[in-house]
Amino acid sequence: VSLVSEDLEVPSHGRLLDIIRSTGPVSRIELAERTGLTRASVSNIVRVLLERGFVDEVGLADSRGGKRRTMLAISPAARFGIGIHLKADQITYVVTNMAGGMVGRQQGRGARDQSPAIVVARIAHETETLIDKLGLPPAAVVGIGIVAPGPIDYAAGKISGLPTLVDWSEYPLREELSQATGRPVVVDKDATAAAIGEFWGGRVDVPLSFACLYMEQGIGSGIVVDGSAFRGSASNAGEIGHVSLDFRGPPCRCGNRGCLENFASPVAVVRNARASGFPLGPPEEISDSQAFDEIARLAVNHDPAARKLIEDSAAYVAEGAVSLVNMTDLDLVVLAGPGFAIAGAIYVEFIRDALNERAFARKTHGVDVKLSTTSRDAAAVGASALVLQRVLAPRA
Amino acid sequence: VSLVSEDLEVPSHGRLLDIIRSTGPVSRIELAERTGLTRASVSNIVRVLLERGFVDEVGLADSRGGKRRTMLAISPAARFGIGIHLKADQITYVVTNMAGGMVGRQQGRGARDQSPAIVVARIAHETETLIDKLGLPPAAVVGIGIVAPGPIDYAAGKISGLPTLVDWSEYPLREELSQATGRPVVVDKDATAAAIGEFWGGRVDVPLSFACLYMEQGIGSGIVVDGSAFRGSASNAGEIGHVSLDFRGPPCRCGNRGCLENFASPVAVVRNARASGFPLGPPEEISDSQAFDEIARLAVNHDPAARKLIEDSAAYVAEGAVSLVNMTDLDLVVLAGPGFAIAGAIYVEFIRDALNERAFARKTHGVDVKLSTTSRDAAAVGASALVLQRVLAPRA
Repeated sequence: VSLVSEDLEVPSHGRLLDIIRSTGPVSRIELAERTGLTRASVSNIVRVLLERGFVDEVGLADSRGGKRRTMLAISPAARFGIGIHLKADQITYVVTNMAGGMVGRQQGRGARDQSPAIVVARIAHETETLIDKLGLPPAAVVGIGIVAPGPIDYAAGKISGLPTLVDWSEYPLREELSQATGRPVVVDKDATAAAIGEFWGGRVDVPLSFACLYMEQGIGSGIVVDGSAFRGSASNAGEIGHVSLDFRGPPCRCGNRGCLENFASPVAVVRNARASGFPLGPPEEISDSQAFDEIARLAVNHDPAARKLIEDSAAYVAEGAVSLVNMTDLDLVVLAGPGFAIAGAIYVEFIRDALNERAFARKTHGVDVKLSTTSRDAAAVGASALVLQRVLAPRA
Repeated sequence: VSLVSEDLEVPSHGRLLDIIRSTGPVSRIELAERTGLTRASVSNIVRVLLERGFVDEVGLADSRGGKRRTMLAISPAARFGIGIHLKADQITYVVTNMAGGMVGRQQGRGARDQSPAIVVARIAHETETLIDKLGLPPAAVVGIGIVAPGPIDYAAGKISGLPTLVDWSEYPLREELSQATGRPVVVDKDATAAAIGEFWGGRVDVPLSFACLYMEQGIGSGIVVDGSAFRGSASNAGEIGHVSLDFRGPPCRCGNRGCLENFASPVAVVRNARASGFPLGPPEEISDSQAFDEIARLAVNHDPAARKLIEDSAAYVAEGAVSLVNMTDLDLVVLAGPGFAIAGAIYVEFIRDALNERAFARKTHGVDVKLSTTSRDAAAVGASALVLQRVLAPRA
């Protein structure tokens, strides 16, 4: 199934759509000013967008006078994207509309202990069931974004980052899922998806370029430059969780030593908690994610031992944030993912302080730190944004 | 003085010029194929490029047959750029032609101990003297690129990265130098310039996206994505020298702790050498750069103590290269700058080994490591490339 869109074959169409989506009601004249296109070109493109139902005309009073002007706004329900977050223990499906708003969500059994072919057949079935259950016209769904932790091979559409799922690294995930569903499929990294999701959804006041720290069981980041993901050669850019904080540190499963993830991740926090006798249920009864959430909740409620565990993690994440900012020189870091869902405010505080004190270019410009509002589903929502962007507003 | 070029106001002109420059003789048909432009558009643009003398028609036999085909090649001497590397102890000036080839070079007294205004007046004078001495038509010089270590403020055209030159941080360098010379001026970071210089000069077989590790007294990097510098918000991206290798490490002048630079830079190597009783002239008689070059020469000639000092530095730089690659996922690292001029091969070996063993995505793709051939003047040559690119082949 081709990713070349039947909807929008011309990049400038997608560009206008992108502006209309992200800036809200906007006039044709403003579109011409912002893009440098002639008014005639804008009118022609807008006619196509109106015909396809992507945008609506909304009459709004001009704030500078009483004269009413025809404004254009996105028509959110014209098209939908499917976002899938593939994990060993669980698969999350979301459906978002063209404005990035979630219109459906469901969870299924994880990918562990089954062959890729069986998992993909199940995903295809569950995806179509979800579309059906939501009553969406199948043709209004533009495609599927499916994301996992890195390393991934973006061009080949393969994943190999799930430690317990080694046989996926040779499996042609994009092709197989596309064949099974008859839909365009984009395969990418969870953290990259989360970053594009923040941009596409516009939930925080994000500029066009920013970094998104993503914390789930591990820690990664996605880098957005001028509204596009900075991917590097295979879309593994932003692996801040495997930047070493201590070159003499403990070996990491990635092959490096002293990686941030080993000091700061939720898994590390739970390990440290158990080692220090912090009261948690036995590992058979409580997963690492559940245990981390419990520690985070206690930390927020001022339990001293829990607070210490989370603050230690936040101090390490802040070290990573300084490295991330020194490497990218961006002026906004958004925190997304389940790891920030409960105690995110503590992380924001530590990261903000560290950047104010130690970022290389702090005298040239500040760096803002914000919490995403879609923490738990950031990767799945972002996966849907990836396919919506790819199909509806492709970038050069 | 405006940076909007009188020569090439249309981006697609610059794009064709970029392809002709970087791929050598190329036919109009190939240009149409590579750009997606129609043959008629290509012909129109090429006519403009020919009229302005930027390209020449060169008849070359088609390798697939006896039929001769009209090919287009860059006309290197049509335009020139000035590159200036501003340092406390020395200012280096180079002139390069449109193909990135150096046609002139000169060095002047550094910026230390004089006010920015006096230094800029001197730079303006020395620049015009150099153009005159080389007999270049003044109008053939498109502008000046001037670079320094970060932090810099790209949009404001200011530098503040010279530790001994603190009063430059508020000085409007770009405006003042532009006014003093009547020429367009670009202010940027030394490492970013070195990276763009590698791309523009095409001296190593660089792909469009790569990272350039730049080592002089400190260590930095420049990141090139699709032929453009990745700058972040103020062009301080790539500050790998201030990514911490050891969060418990010694404080750095940048405000961070355990920065790569403090373990690995030429200055650190000389400090370590002196501390361990390595025989070097007294600091009053031999600068850190000279001392480092002496150690590097001895290391290349198998002096065990010198070899140990350089290998220790190379091991740390390799740690930094792993972080750089994990953050960018690029598949080529070029080593440039005076720090790699003598013992670069030792650094290449350590970095290659570390990336093969520990880079996060090493199973997805390899990372090539190459030495630049313009090591000593990489920043100045790159500064010239920055202004040539900005004026002749501006990117969106």
